[in-house]
Amino acid sequence: MAKVSPRTLSGFMELLPAQQMKMERMMQILRDSYALYGFTPLDTPIIESAEVLLAKGGGETEKQVYRFQKGDSDLALRFDLTVPLAKYVAQHYGELAFPFRRCQIGKVYRGERAQRGRFREFYQADIDVIGDGKLDILNEAEIPAIIYNTFTKLGLTKFKIRVNNRKLLNGFYAMNGMSEKAGEIMRTVDKLDKIGAEKVKALLIDEVKMLPCKAENVLDFMAICGTNAEVIEALERYRCMDVTFDQGLDELIAVTRYLRDFGVPEENFAVDLTIARGLDYYTGTVYETVMSEHPEIGSVCSGGRYDNLAEYYTDKQLPGVGISIGLTRLFYVLNEQGLLSDELITAPCDALVLPMTEELGFAVAAATALRNAGIRTQLYGEKKKFKAKMAYADRIGVPFAVLIGEDEMNEGVLSVKDMKTGEQVKLAPDAAAQYIAQRVAAMNSGSVIKE
Amino acid sequence: MAKVSPRTLSGFMELLPAQQMKMERMMQILRDSYALYGFTPLDTPIIESAEVLLAKGGGETEKQVYRFQKGDSDLALRFDLTVPLAKYVAQHYGELAFPFRRCQIGKVYRGERAQRGRFREFYQADIDVIGDGKLDILNEAEIPAIIYNTFTKLGLTKFKIRVNNRKLLNGFYAMNGMSEKAGEIMRTVDKLDKIGAEKVKALLIDEVKMLPCKAENVLDFMAICGTNAEVIEALERYRCMDVTFDQGLDELIAVTRYLRDFGVPEENFAVDLTIARGLDYYTGTVYETVMSEHPEIGSVCSGGRYDNLAEYYTDKQLPGVGISIGLTRLFYVLNEQGLLSDELITAPCDALVLPMTEELGFAVAAATALRNAGIRTQLYGEKKKFKAKMAYADRIGVPFAVLIGEDEMNEGVLSVKDMKTGEQVKLAPDAAAQYIAQRVAAMNSGSVIKE
Repeated sequence: MAKVSPRTLSGFMELLPAQQMKMERMMQILRDSYALYGFTPLDTPIIESAEVLLAKGGGETEKQVYRFQKGDSDLALRFDLTVPLAKYVAQHYGELAFPFRRCQIGKVYRGERAQRGRFREFYQADIDVIGDGKLDILNEAEIPAIIYNTFTKLGLTKFKIRVNNRKLLNGFYAMNGMSEKAGEIMRTVDKLDKIGAEKVKALLIDEVKMLPCKAENVLDFMAICGTNAEVIEALERYRCMDVTFDQGLDELIAVTRYLRDFGVPEENFAVDLTIARGLDYYTGTVYETVMSEHPEIGSVCSGGRYDNLAEYYTDKQLPGVGISIGLTRLFYVLNEQGLLSDELITAPCDALVLPMTEELGFAVAAATALRNAGIRTQLYGEKKKFKAKMAYADRIGVPFAVLIGEDEMNEGVLSVKDMKTGEQVKLAPDAAAQYIAQRVAAMNSGSVIKE
Repeated sequence: MAKVSPRTLSGFMELLPAQQMKMERMMQILRDSYALYGFTPLDTPIIESAEVLLAKGGGETEKQVYRFQKGDSDLALRFDLTVPLAKYVAQHYGELAFPFRRCQIGKVYRGERAQRGRFREFYQADIDVIGDGKLDILNEAEIPAIIYNTFTKLGLTKFKIRVNNRKLLNGFYAMNGMSEKAGEIMRTVDKLDKIGAEKVKALLIDEVKMLPCKAENVLDFMAICGTNAEVIEALERYRCMDVTFDQGLDELIAVTRYLRDFGVPEENFAVDLTIARGLDYYTGTVYETVMSEHPEIGSVCSGGRYDNLAEYYTDKQLPGVGISIGLTRLFYVLNEQGLLSDELITAPCDALVLPMTEELGFAVAAATALRNAGIRTQLYGEKKKFKAKMAYADRIGVPFAVLIGEDEMNEGVLSVKDMKTGEQVKLAPDAAAQYIAQRVAAMNSGSVIKE
């Protein structure tokens, strides 16, 4: 028979077992962490009506969307988890309690040009809090606090959540009479990291057509840095010139104070006035998260406050605040950088029961006893030589082999072999389960990410 | 602005929060149960090249596939998890250890005619064990044992795993000189449940053109029933007439013996000679699982032994055995029948911290203490009246409200209110955490499914 070459599409991540185990661990940590903060886990369809999904329309995103006909239906695959959330909240408005807190970890699709580290199918891990009409500023501090805790649980330490407030920026541009050019200015200022202040200034003057003194004002403002207290002190000097600015400053002060209350250390968050995010969407606090030693990766977790989640579906005013981890990309980068720990068990099981006799009853009972003690156990039933069995144990990287021969059956014990040290002990089934469980717990006590 | 009507496509399940929590619980039980048996959790792309996905071609399935162009690529959405597994194993053959045990819980897509209880996007929860060239019969007993344990953990008791062996059927038809008509006969016999023995006999004679005595032979064979021992005893009478039959009988005897070793009670599995499953795929033991009090649902979990997983991709002989739970359909049916327990907590949090003061520092600290104790906690930050806050607590169905006013702050305690009984106690944060944790554990101690 002619064979079809088995292959995976470019831009689609498909992991080998050991890698997949690492990914599963990360996902489980995200699930558990989000749950701890009281978020409802949602699961919306991957396929939606194109009309619904593209209600906002326009932009780069639409070009990338996987869109197709099935029968008479014009369908599209979701390209983020925010639009499905907006749809969900508008559709089920009467059945939800607000604030509505939801998390969703799911695949999204973008037909981007394929390139290394870019994915067409990737996981996003989102949390959002949606208010009905109003939403307290406290939520704008809790969201980055959740990210801090989640990243910490993953084992990341060298990261910084950069916080800004769109009202500060809008207010600043208004007080300088630059509101109309704000979008253009922000896009230019965004290049600060890459090309430096002098070149940005030149662009502001030559291309954005600003007066040199105004361009300097912008650069002076963007250059404000220091501890969060110092930044806020510097910002206080702009107070009372613009109502929106003052409101933004009050919000920023509240957010930084609450972040302290939530126990987020100063080294993990910083006010950064250069951050703007999606220009036509966010209206208050905005976030980006960078890995301090890998700034080249860019933001691994971004979001912010918006005033109108579902304006394309409903007249209801639904403000919210949310953040999204680009999980597939984060995993890819961590893996490439060698930052995923190899100390945790990546084998599909903790114990491999190897019967050495024809009669399997005792081996089955042993496997059952181990499983009842919560030990992930594989029972090896193939009729192979001892050497082949041990080679399999090595190959899957199982930490413990449980050998069962005539002697063990007669004595009612299990021979537990530590595959790393080679040490072997004979124990009664219960004791063996305890022995393995303790060691497995110790092996898995570290973090998924090792910096 | 003109609004787009927010809606979900027909045939796509989208659950409200409380329902989603029930689904999440089921999925977590499946994940944990599969892991306990040493299965690698795989995650393959939802989109594959159409050429790869449809390598087998033909049949009803192909008509239902979501297939579309993106750029130059002919793409399709996976319609099951078996074809992606075949692709994966063929593609990564050199990097896998055999037997390769994988589980996968993921969405699949079939553009079926929409009707009540039929889904176009639905979860399958699969386990498979793949051998390289050979695979021991033990695996054919372990697979239904895993399903027994998984269903039991879900809380199901009234279910029966029906087991048959294709070699028994093929051997029986061979010894009766009916091999060529075997497919037709099996399709007719499949109607036994619905139309009864007399009508099946008539069909066998009139349409399949069998001699009456042969048709009777078939019906006599299919009528074999009783305890598993009785069925096997009856089957022994056919021994030594056909090699394949004898092999099938030996396998069936081995499987039923191992099932006992694995601790599967007789009331939960039965040899049933009328079961055939996919005619051109399965070659040994086959399974179906029915809910005893809801036979109308049909099989909720099916599978079997196959000899050649990946023949469309590779010359390697890869026999395997697997089973699939149609999770979305199972959830739908259980929900419709009112079999999903309402006793377990379906709120997104266990504790809702309600600050009654402007100053939130103590409330934040309280929420942090509860979360550190593993309690899913929401901090309510909206500035609303007490009544509105309690109404919210009622609405989300949280079991415990944690009230924090001036008194509590001054005394350094939390007022914990049991939302069901109305009972309220003042406790130090640690004691409050312990109090809530114990009660939450008790509330969640039941099963997801209540028959």
